[in-house]
Amino acid sequence: MTRPIPHVEMANAIRALSMDAVEAAQSGHPGMPMGMADVATVLFTRFLKFDASAPEWHDRDRFVLSAGHGSMLLYSLLHLCGYPGWDMDVLRSFRQLGSPAAGHPEYGHGAGIETTTGPLGQGLAAAVGMALGEERDRARFGSDLVDHYTYVVTGDGCLMEGISHEAISFAGHHRLSRLIVLFDDNHVSIDGDTALTCSDDQAARFKACGWHCQSVDGHDPEAVAAAIGAARDSDRPSMIACRTIIGYGAPSKAGTAKVHGAPLGPEEIEAARAALVWPHAPFTVPDTILNAWRAAGSRGKSERAAWIDRFNAAPSQARADFTAYYDRDLSAGWKAALTAHIAQESRTAPSKATRKASGDALEVLTPLLPALVGGSADLTGSVNTRTNATETMQSGIMENRYIHYGIREHAMAAIMNGLALHGGTIPYGGTFLVFAGYMHPAMRLSALMGLQVIYILTHDSIGLGEDGPTHQPVETLAMLRATPNLTVIRPADTVETSEAWAIALKRKDGPTAIVLSRQNLPCLRTKSTGDGSAADGGYILREAACAPRTVTLIATGSETSIAVAARDALEPRGIGTAVVSLPSWELFDAQNDDYRRRVLGTGLRVGIEAAGSLGWHKYLGEDGIFIGMQGFGASGPAEELYRHFGITADAIVDAVVSHPKTQGQTQHEHEQV
Amino acid sequence: MTRPIPHVEMANAIRALSMDAVEAAQSGHPGMPMGMADVATVLFTRFLKFDASAPEWHDRDRFVLSAGHGSMLLYSLLHLCGYPGWDMDVLRSFRQLGSPAAGHPEYGHGAGIETTTGPLGQGLAAAVGMALGEERDRARFGSDLVDHYTYVVTGDGCLMEGISHEAISFAGHHRLSRLIVLFDDNHVSIDGDTALTCSDDQAARFKACGWHCQSVDGHDPEAVAAAIGAARDSDRPSMIACRTIIGYGAPSKAGTAKVHGAPLGPEEIEAARAALVWPHAPFTVPDTILNAWRAAGSRGKSERAAWIDRFNAAPSQARADFTAYYDRDLSAGWKAALTAHIAQESRTAPSKATRKASGDALEVLTPLLPALVGGSADLTGSVNTRTNATETMQSGIMENRYIHYGIREHAMAAIMNGLALHGGTIPYGGTFLVFAGYMHPAMRLSALMGLQVIYILTHDSIGLGEDGPTHQPVETLAMLRATPNLTVIRPADTVETSEAWAIALKRKDGPTAIVLSRQNLPCLRTKSTGDGSAADGGYILREAACAPRTVTLIATGSETSIAVAARDALEPRGIGTAVVSLPSWELFDAQNDDYRRRVLGTGLRVGIEAAGSLGWHKYLGEDGIFIGMQGFGASGPAEELYRHFGITADAIVDAVVSHPKTQGQTQHEHEQV
Repeated sequence: MTRPIPHVEMANAIRALSMDAVEAAQSGHPGMPMGMADVATVLFTRFLKFDASAPEWHDRDRFVLSAGHGSMLLYSLLHLCGYPGWDMDVLRSFRQLGSPAAGHPEYGHGAGIETTTGPLGQGLAAAVGMALGEERDRARFGSDLVDHYTYVVTGDGCLMEGISHEAISFAGHHRLSRLIVLFDDNHVSIDGDTALTCSDDQAARFKACGWHCQSVDGHDPEAVAAAIGAARDSDRPSMIACRTIIGYGAPSKAGTAKVHGAPLGPEEIEAARAALVWPHAPFTVPDTILNAWRAAGSRGKSERAAWIDRFNAAPSQARADFTAYYDRDLSAGWKAALTAHIAQESRTAPSKATRKASGDALEVLTPLLPALVGGSADLTGSVNTRTNATETMQSGIMENRYIHYGIREHAMAAIMNGLALHGGTIPYGGTFLVFAGYMHPAMRLSALMGLQVIYILTHDSIGLGEDGPTHQPVETLAMLRATPNLTVIRPADTVETSEAWAIALKRKDGPTAIVLSRQNLPCLRTKSTGDGSAADGGYILREAACAPRTVTLIATGSETSIAVAARDALEPRGIGTAVVSLPSWELFDAQNDDYRRRVLGTGLRVGIEAAGSLGWHKYLGEDGIFIGMQGFGASGPAEELYRHFGITADAIVDAVVSHPKTQGQTQHEHEQV
Repeated sequence: MTRPIPHVEMANAIRALSMDAVEAAQSGHPGMPMGMADVATVLFTRFLKFDASAPEWHDRDRFVLSAGHGSMLLYSLLHLCGYPGWDMDVLRSFRQLGSPAAGHPEYGHGAGIETTTGPLGQGLAAAVGMALGEERDRARFGSDLVDHYTYVVTGDGCLMEGISHEAISFAGHHRLSRLIVLFDDNHVSIDGDTALTCSDDQAARFKACGWHCQSVDGHDPEAVAAAIGAARDSDRPSMIACRTIIGYGAPSKAGTAKVHGAPLGPEEIEAARAALVWPHAPFTVPDTILNAWRAAGSRGKSERAAWIDRFNAAPSQARADFTAYYDRDLSAGWKAALTAHIAQESRTAPSKATRKASGDALEVLTPLLPALVGGSADLTGSVNTRTNATETMQSGIMENRYIHYGIREHAMAAIMNGLALHGGTIPYGGTFLVFAGYMHPAMRLSALMGLQVIYILTHDSIGLGEDGPTHQPVETLAMLRATPNLTVIRPADTVETSEAWAIALKRKDGPTAIVLSRQNLPCLRTKSTGDGSAADGGYILREAACAPRTVTLIATGSETSIAVAARDALEPRGIGTAVVSLPSWELFDAQNDDYRRRVLGTGLRVGIEAAGSLGWHKYLGEDGIFIGMQGFGASGPAEELYRHFGITADAIVDAVVSHPKTQGQTQHEHEQV
């Protein structure tokens, strides 16, 4: 008979692997994994519902390491529990190029990594999104199929970041009782004792937001277990402050900032091995201990089998719905409906703000696509994200599809990440474009993880008028375009706006930002203008007619109609002028060289956008002209601002006719007159 | 004898002006000013220490309208109290182009506007910086000269934004007892009742962060007065939840979201005039009421006179110190010391990380410049912002010059804004470059307000290595360069880093971001390389030597030494190659055309930067080459990452020799071999 393996030996396996991997890499953070090893061991061996052999099982509990620098805690657990692909060699390759064991947990790099973390607070807020997803899916499919918890490990850093308040407040409001936060209360941050900078009573703070709170000794497994049990029984989200010693086991460095983010060094590691009574060689876990961990990793097999039985016993429609939902199946008739909507808009040619056009497209799409879960950061009526098909998600009707995120842009973006990660939904959320700055770190993670999250960003320029420069983005488009794997679309009219929605829905491997006007814009695609559309990124909206093309006006969004007006003034002067609509740089840049050259033309190119010029020179060439903003905006009526900042058809005409490249044409035209 | 003017009539003057101005502009937010009119009247007529005729008096109380959309509250008060430049005509021009009465309060547009607000939470956090500045200056100059309060009006929006937690937590930790927050607790946000999305017990939340809290009826002037009195006596920062009715006085719309952000309309305004018993014409305040307000505006005259007496009675050295401090006088010998430091670095040519070079420059500067107040968001040892001359600011030694901001990047930036606005200090603060994303909204306000705030942003590329893509900025430089009035400097070596500090110190009208490497870099300016320096933005670091220049390698920061290595490989092949160091695009773009053309050359241009390409085409021309990042980074040792992503001297050489423009030279060189 084999003896049961004591808790401490199992926890020490995490500690040893963590310090060994950091030492091998000569880089990393041993302190947190060593401090939280006991808590994690209790969670993974007694509570967490998972089957390491099936890391994608829908009804698994989620485990989020929000304090992502402690990545070796997670990697140790994934190895010990037997997740596929987490052999010991992977731990040996910690922080090496190409290893799944990256410096911080990277979603998609290995089984069992539920989300990318590292930028502090993001994991906590994404976990709120996962717990919200669970709550919604349970309301939708019933607890036979959806019934799991979301556990989060956070440190002081996560809780100091502002996003934590947005996330905690939101979770408390929605009473997300399946969300359990394990706070690594180790009193140490990089600069030293947390008392140097923070005096928050974290438990009182969480309670003020409606949470259930406990405090325990994080090195007492029974106390931790009792607290997790009580947290699971609470009808509110739960925070357990686990008092731990950072770097637990390292005799001279434990409890200090020294152990946070640097290898312990051979001497300290040897001393830690002695102190922990862990006489095994680096990267070596005795079979008895490994087997006990592997048993923990397969604890959930029977639960999963039972779940499969329940799934198979469900009515076929329910099974089909469930599967389609988690596959984000978009086979329903939305494309035909949207095509019909576009045809009608093109025919009736309404003048409308693109934010309104977006709302109209959503009215068509949301009834057909149950995956769409909308919301806004307290600007619902301004960003037009709510439709007749999307009712407010709230207590008792959590299956609903409209989320009032509150004035919490950053959490909105992170919660959308969590919803997308949890599965099934295609979250979209709206705010003003300038406030993308409040949520960019979470948008960046949408892009880095390749999540289908749709950002609706309205009031996209000085065109918003009187609210003034604090609300008028001039740098935000550049910020978004500079972000890899984010598709940015700034449609020119109602037709392009619907096309933008089609692009965003088809794009399953990354986020899309749809950038929209506050002000009304004419419909420019009232009849066939060739084969181009927003899906091409850029296309010839109007070809030169009076003469071969010598000028190409290139514009995005609300400035496209200004470019068309300028063309209408230039052509009668004999200057062959085309207008290129360029709603998405990313999509245009993905076209082949020939196409791009043909669209941009060889003559004088003029870029027109009510934003800063950064990035435009790529399209304009050496003698091109940019007409846009030179600095911040101002408060005043929108039309006056356009005149004040010189973004008008007249200004375009003046710039074109005074350019050396068109002097010939202009004189010619003058002679004719 | 004139009767005393009842409180309600004075408050109604604010309400009437606010609804009239919004109606005239047909745009704006009447609800908040009408709701908070009573609280503001109590504050301005009984407590606020100010002399409207001297809005720059150093020892005035600060009043910050964090809920900046309620700007008519502030503008009404400035007019009524008699601040210079706030005639009735200005209120009539509310939200018109060029008016000081912009949509949101804009710092510098008119007397009495202490800071720009509108993006929610920013005012609150900046006010924390002002209160911190007061605390520090009082410790430094004594309460005879510095002894004032900072009052802030916030709404639900400010308190939902994450930055509020960072600010509240920081203020509580430092027990900023002169900070008093008046929370407009009106239960209404844009989407409707705040209960739709928020269940926070705000008082409990503030208490958890160490604040003194009270709740009052915001329409009961005596209750408000008692609460403000108690708040002033508290030894902690204080929050008063003022229960108000948004749009108070508008009979059918008060208490609803309808009154938040739209004109009331003529009928509702007429009804409000009746309900408030305010029979006066629009933009008309009876003399009796105006006189009472003007008396409030001059209440502080005697206090200011007494302050001037105390100032004049102070020792001459103390007076000189005080004046020099608030003038941010930089006449001390820092330039000579820095020049000597640069000369020594140039002579000894140390290989060092530019973050280290920055710390070394600060060791020279901080003893000479008492205005420099440093700090970091919990990365002190990594960003090298602390020097021997800057000790930790904490209870009892608030005159110290080093601030541990905690893991609160967003509040750090906003608090630095507040410190700069309060006067005297030149704040600088450090974090990793990628985390500029966490604080960009506050950096934007530094730029919009033209504040001398210095951002130290280290670990600026894949050169940080193993921490991986979450920590490796690829879009952040573009984000910063796109921000108007922000000077971005990415120095190549220790010499340019010191020059960057000189630029930042001399630049009094806007913020500077100094972008620094984690990894060691060789010193490239070991001897004279011509007259160029970082102050030019870009300059020829190495001219072509083997032949007339046909290739120009243009690089910033850590990639400059890679460019130099590539040149050293190209020149022996007979390809005349110059290296241009381009540490600051903004400064380079400000040079004249001739200079820029001469520096960039007419041959093949190659841009090299370990970041995305957005913006580079401006310098590269149509057939230029960019060598940098195509997407996100990865986790691994830095040198491997540079090879993996193809940012090496070899890659530059390959790109150059295979380019059509150099085929001639290369063949020639091959023939020679």
